[in-house]
Amino acid sequence: MTGHVPEPCDLLIEAGFVVPIEPHGVVLAAHAVAIRDGIVVALLPVAEARARFAAVDTVSRHDAVLLPGLVNAHTHNPMTLLRGIADDLPLKVWLQEHIWPVEGAVMGPDFVADGVTLAIAEMLRGGTTCANENYFFPDVQAATYKRHGFRARVGLPVIDFPTAWAASDDAYFDRAGEVHDQWRDDTLIATAFAPHAPYTVSDGNFARIRMLADQLDLPVHLHLHETAQEVRQSIDDHGQRPIARLDRLGLVNDRLIAVHMTQLTDGEIDLCAERGVSVVHCPESNLKLASGFCPVCALERAGVTLAIGTDGCASNNDLDMVGETRTAALLAKAVANDAAGFDAFTALRAATLGGARAMGFDHLVGSIEPGKQADLACIDLSALETQPLHHVVSQLVYATGRQQVTDVWIGGVAKLRDRVLVDMDIAGIIANARQWRTRIAALRS
Amino acid sequence: MTGHVPEPCDLLIEAGFVVPIEPHGVVLAAHAVAIRDGIVVALLPVAEARARFAAVDTVSRHDAVLLPGLVNAHTHNPMTLLRGIADDLPLKVWLQEHIWPVEGAVMGPDFVADGVTLAIAEMLRGGTTCANENYFFPDVQAATYKRHGFRARVGLPVIDFPTAWAASDDAYFDRAGEVHDQWRDDTLIATAFAPHAPYTVSDGNFARIRMLADQLDLPVHLHLHETAQEVRQSIDDHGQRPIARLDRLGLVNDRLIAVHMTQLTDGEIDLCAERGVSVVHCPESNLKLASGFCPVCALERAGVTLAIGTDGCASNNDLDMVGETRTAALLAKAVANDAAGFDAFTALRAATLGGARAMGFDHLVGSIEPGKQADLACIDLSALETQPLHHVVSQLVYATGRQQVTDVWIGGVAKLRDRVLVDMDIAGIIANARQWRTRIAALRS
Repeated sequence: MTGHVPEPCDLLIEAGFVVPIEPHGVVLAAHAVAIRDGIVVALLPVAEARARFAAVDTVSRHDAVLLPGLVNAHTHNPMTLLRGIADDLPLKVWLQEHIWPVEGAVMGPDFVADGVTLAIAEMLRGGTTCANENYFFPDVQAATYKRHGFRARVGLPVIDFPTAWAASDDAYFDRAGEVHDQWRDDTLIATAFAPHAPYTVSDGNFARIRMLADQLDLPVHLHLHETAQEVRQSIDDHGQRPIARLDRLGLVNDRLIAVHMTQLTDGEIDLCAERGVSVVHCPESNLKLASGFCPVCALERAGVTLAIGTDGCASNNDLDMVGETRTAALLAKAVANDAAGFDAFTALRAATLGGARAMGFDHLVGSIEPGKQADLACIDLSALETQPLHHVVSQLVYATGRQQVTDVWIGGVAKLRDRVLVDMDIAGIIANARQWRTRIAALRS
Repeated sequence: MTGHVPEPCDLLIEAGFVVPIEPHGVVLAAHAVAIRDGIVVALLPVAEARARFAAVDTVSRHDAVLLPGLVNAHTHNPMTLLRGIADDLPLKVWLQEHIWPVEGAVMGPDFVADGVTLAIAEMLRGGTTCANENYFFPDVQAATYKRHGFRARVGLPVIDFPTAWAASDDAYFDRAGEVHDQWRDDTLIATAFAPHAPYTVSDGNFARIRMLADQLDLPVHLHLHETAQEVRQSIDDHGQRPIARLDRLGLVNDRLIAVHMTQLTDGEIDLCAERGVSVVHCPESNLKLASGFCPVCALERAGVTLAIGTDGCASNNDLDMVGETRTAALLAKAVANDAAGFDAFTALRAATLGGARAMGFDHLVGSIEPGKQADLACIDLSALETQPLHHVVSQLVYATGRQQVTDVWIGGVAKLRDRVLVDMDIAGIIANARQWRTRIAALRS
């Protein structure tokens, strides 16, 4: 014996395979992750881990792959309560005749808290550990995410018309400042400016956002170039395509989280790459609303940071980042006419580290590296649907369902254990969702 | 009391919702299906069913929707054993450098039987009750499907080069005749001609298939207009686009099950409608291999019978018809630039009755109607991922995962009961798949 004294750690997770994301393209067989105070302290072969660490708790998943928790880089989680409320409709009819009227009637703290709680349960069961949130009542969202120990950046909405959240331009900015102030030192929750879209935010409000985002060091989370109609309208109203207008207003920079981006010229792709803009691709929403096709392979080749988002449940209709990553990987190839494009490793990186980068969280999460937060997801591959196992990451991206997620940790805290949510009242959440269904049905009848 | 004597039936299935598919667009709340001798005898409200029938067995699923079993209208199920073996590659490299060499080394009765068995288990767990099979060794496939009580039409392969199945043109036709003869009166298994593709089958072999298909009253199941390259090559080699060449050879008629069809002119769409050609759309395979986009909405508008298939697991990589139907519904809208196109009901009809029609099985299955076989799938919607429930069929198509399938019957025989496969040795199937992984890995190293 060596007389070696084992290092203490809180948790040792042993997995059949670990995909750390960084370095890119690597699958480590029979590796373990050691966690202390919520932080990854080592990633090493199982045998070495057992020799080196004395863990308070050990979780062994020898039929599973351990990866960083998935990052949903664009979502409107309170809308989980509107899942399937109005499908198979043109975007304008969908938004103006269905979504907005219902939202007008129900939106408030209760709706937001209940929708986010349902969403957190769904996200955790699907391996998602971090959300880039974009909706009204960010104060309620933030408190709800915090209560459940879920990592999020909540958007501070700005839109040119009154809503239940704020009645005037000044009120939007006042409330944004208050919410930012409340959460600015939090370890789990952060904020971003969330101007709704180029067609609903004035030059003046964009200029104000530019200044405040610089002063407060905040990202700007924006629907951008979602449809051809948006681009045409901007040319009509402003004489410029939306991204050119934003550039004139000083917003095309590495703070910008540009969501959708289905309408892009080569010059605009190069501009995004030069300026460090992040693009969040929401393939299922873009397909379902017939918004257009994001040129994912071209963005990737240009070096743009790519992230993946589900968008809200009224246009998807789920928060399934496993499925969304598959759709992204499949669709990118067809759009680029290149079956070798946006391969499984690259898609998985977008769904983890890419999202973390877009959100400005890549110093914290997005890969399994010593010093980062232990935000992790474990996915079982022993089910017959993922056998035989010729290639771990192909299997993850092209054949695995989110129901194969067995365990999830955020900051080293177990949130899902052997498929069971820790400290969440599932029956209560479902009963609540059913009450909202009844209430909304009554509104519409 | 009325003195009424209840009618006997073998099985009464009560469901929160029934989607019979025919008539189109209908959801029946709190309905039941009565089954006798494997046949649906009635579909009626639960209360009426309880009064009218004395059932040997009653299954109650009040949180679930009952629908016809899903029909996978194009698959190569032995290739389930090659799931994920070579992804993210151009079609030609994928096929010629990976799939064909491995197949050359492993293809035979054992490979086919083991692959089909694994596929049956996966399909049943995902609500699929019928497969349109297209691979070598149809004799082994047929015996395997029959053994597990699974409905299938097995393709009788014809290809212009020798394989482990047949060494010459005559051998392909001789073996086809033998397999057809063996199964021609079976209640579960039928056959079809399965010429591989326009670029691998000569005019002479197509002419022979035309004659035999007419004589034997068999469908012709063919990959057609899968890629632009296929169309170009046909013009180079034959001076005609593939479908024009097939028309010259007398094959463009209501026997033709045309798979993929990503390259179609308006005239070709009209031709398919006039002649009663069925089109099988395989969206995930088309995306993954960057084959092109099938014009689903245009085919639908023209009145062409549309079905959905997963294709084989080497190009998908699963047999998930729930997910494939979602992808079909999402993609069709984006391709047609119409968010109202190929709605959830229409997609679900393609995945059931459309497949049955394409396969010539619509007198047997594809809808829940008295007189049809009781091929049924029950899908639970109580999980938080499908709450709240604003719209049953939207939820099914846009939010439900195949793991929510709870029960499956084929011809009234329970194949999946409360998520448990009946009479299948799962551990043995998985162990077998793992052996094939080891054997194939050794071949390639």
